[in-house]
Amino acid sequence: MDVDIGNALSSVASPGVSRDSLERLDDRVARAHERIEAGRAADDHGYAALNLPERADPDAVRAAVDPLGEPEALVTVGIGGSALGAATITDALGADLETAYLDNVDPARIDAVLDRLPLSETAINVVSRSGTTAETLANFLVVREAFAEAGVDWTERTVVTTGRSGPLADLADRHDLRRLPVPDGVPGRFSALSPVGLVAPALAGVDIEGVLAGARAESESLAGSLFDCPAYAYGAITYALNCRGASINAMMPYAESLETYAEWFAQLWAESLGKDGLGGTPVRALGATDQHSQLQLYRAGPRDKLVTFVVPDERPELAIPETEVDELAYLGGRGLGELLDAEFAATEASLAAVGRPSVRIELDRVDAGELGGLLYGMEAACVLVGELSGVNAFDQPAVEWAKRATRGLLGGGEFEEAEAVAGKTSLRVER
Amino acid sequence: MDVDIGNALSSVASPGVSRDSLERLDDRVARAHERIEAGRAADDHGYAALNLPERADPDAVRAAVDPLGEPEALVTVGIGGSALGAATITDALGADLETAYLDNVDPARIDAVLDRLPLSETAINVVSRSGTTAETLANFLVVREAFAEAGVDWTERTVVTTGRSGPLADLADRHDLRRLPVPDGVPGRFSALSPVGLVAPALAGVDIEGVLAGARAESESLAGSLFDCPAYAYGAITYALNCRGASINAMMPYAESLETYAEWFAQLWAESLGKDGLGGTPVRALGATDQHSQLQLYRAGPRDKLVTFVVPDERPELAIPETEVDELAYLGGRGLGELLDAEFAATEASLAAVGRPSVRIELDRVDAGELGGLLYGMEAACVLVGELSGVNAFDQPAVEWAKRATRGLLGGGEFEEAEAVAGKTSLRVER
Repeated sequence: MDVDIGNALSSVASPGVSRDSLERLDDRVARAHERIEAGRAADDHGYAALNLPERADPDAVRAAVDPLGEPEALVTVGIGGSALGAATITDALGADLETAYLDNVDPARIDAVLDRLPLSETAINVVSRSGTTAETLANFLVVREAFAEAGVDWTERTVVTTGRSGPLADLADRHDLRRLPVPDGVPGRFSALSPVGLVAPALAGVDIEGVLAGARAESESLAGSLFDCPAYAYGAITYALNCRGASINAMMPYAESLETYAEWFAQLWAESLGKDGLGGTPVRALGATDQHSQLQLYRAGPRDKLVTFVVPDERPELAIPETEVDELAYLGGRGLGELLDAEFAATEASLAAVGRPSVRIELDRVDAGELGGLLYGMEAACVLVGELSGVNAFDQPAVEWAKRATRGLLGGGEFEEAEAVAGKTSLRVER
Repeated sequence: MDVDIGNALSSVASPGVSRDSLERLDDRVARAHERIEAGRAADDHGYAALNLPERADPDAVRAAVDPLGEPEALVTVGIGGSALGAATITDALGADLETAYLDNVDPARIDAVLDRLPLSETAINVVSRSGTTAETLANFLVVREAFAEAGVDWTERTVVTTGRSGPLADLADRHDLRRLPVPDGVPGRFSALSPVGLVAPALAGVDIEGVLAGARAESESLAGSLFDCPAYAYGAITYALNCRGASINAMMPYAESLETYAEWFAQLWAESLGKDGLGGTPVRALGATDQHSQLQLYRAGPRDKLVTFVVPDERPELAIPETEVDELAYLGGRGLGELLDAEFAATEASLAAVGRPSVRIELDRVDAGELGGLLYGMEAACVLVGELSGVNAFDQPAVEWAKRATRGLLGGGEFEEAEAVAGKTSLRVER
């Protein structure tokens, strides 16, 4: 990926960053890069994620999924980082089978998914790092019962990705399920380039080796200056803009296949950087659709936003037919991709024209190598922002309270958090 | 719907609103209510949207769609407000046919959609208020050619919803297509309860009469005090919190069927209120999924957020099977809905425990009547915030620049905006 930060300079935008400030920030980028490289060399917690392109073993993933043959459908059971990487890669690169993600516990939806899937031809991909995630385990129990009731041997059709021990590992051992490891030192949201994110795309016919190769190429571009490294240029400019009041970062790919990528980015950014009173708010958007939904706010609302565009240079061709209506004649014969490119150029310029900052991430096209580079680049950018902000990008302590409360409410043990739920304040307004 | 604002009071949260401040704000709510009622009585632009529950004509919608019989699939061609209302209602209440929305112009996706649909059994729903929206018209031209190439008479299978005149109206006249009007004085994002939003659900087997009845009941609850009117309670508390620094509003339904509703809300809020340097930023979230993605930021990031929960009291039942693993025994025999309810209660309490404001919107269940009430209530809340903020909630001037630039770039006329695109600033960082 390449990154263009021209529209985030103070010569264009307010808030914006001056060239001088960027030069000064670059000293801090150099020191952060040293810290990151030291963490990678020692395989320290979190930093280890940036070594996945070299360490990941696509052959082990293939060996686990190949015995499943060519299923017609795939259901992935996982939540948060255990689903978003897999969904991002599969949605971006296209699946040659039907895919469903059980990443929630809504009974209305799970019934509908199980009714729709051809269970005897469906593979099951279960992912939980800890092996204790209530939503994922509950869903898996429902899924395996549905398979059993349909007379389908679920043990033959299941791949489990989990840590060394825990209830899910126990279940996998007990039923002799195919099992892949979650790599040590890699938080869920940084695990797209491990079995956590690669099993589903491998089953869906995606070139996972190409994804890893693209990530590897991006990893080789990490360097001690934001002016030499697209990933660090992106991280540094978002950090500098956040310091100047652009606390919201709207991630707006101009490619529908990257809609899920924006979800993945939002988790990466929010959970890694939202702590200690700090952290910008990621907003998921999609071009051109959200021009008709969010652009009014981005262009004319408060000056608290950065818009990040992700734009492929090449798209498939699809011509717009000529029409008999004069007022539409200008569309006839143009490509649909040409229209989308024009919408992007117009939107980017419309923000610049009123001094609103934006950054452009450029991909050659949406393919395995470019996607791998994008995911790796955003992870490296996120780690850099963690260093610059002085927060630990690799923990998520604020999520634990609600997990304990949930468990307590369901009778899974004594937790003081569950008691706090009962004492809530109420001011109801009823119809 | 009922609304509970207890967790947004300053006795619980910071930022939060004191009872005293709410009492003072209520005087302004009373005056705003008078202005809104006067606007409704005169059918003024925008305010007219709040009369749709009484004015909409479901029989006309039925008459337009009934001749299509029982298609197996439905493709809706529209963007922004011309798609989100239809998708929200259909996704919330369930479709008895396959649905696809062409709400973007990505050639990669449109090809995939057209390949997938059984064209000879597919209905086409085209929606554009102005009849000139480039994305929608281009997509419709592509769709009708695909139907023609497949030997399917698209004119027999198409329903058009558009204004009185314009290129789409011309096309509809020329081919004698079934056609429904966009009501006067109703901006796209406020048109869910008109043919714009009702054609697709009607084709999908949804009880649109029930949706309108629910909206009507909500409209009858509008009253001159936030303490008596759930919609105004919601609008007033979001306004007061925004004034106190909670400039981000995360809309987080705990029902997967309401995921699209959060998108609809985000357009309503952003496009209506994001102007003149004002306007909170809506963020689309989903419980429980986003507990594993965004909750870390909401609970421990900057104090610039309100979280709005939407929670149904009743859900379908689906029991979690018993398991052979001790550590999971607490889940066995519980309902999946019970788990989701516990996740919600825990998340709400986890925010209150650290003094982060939230508001709870309660529905009896996700059904036609409750959904109609929710959509109407949020529209009324939005109009109230417009009044309190002193902005015109019914225009979207900042969207026009990019539309003209796009048209200019494609050779559809001379527009100075298109020239501004060429002069862009660049600072590229390449790999």
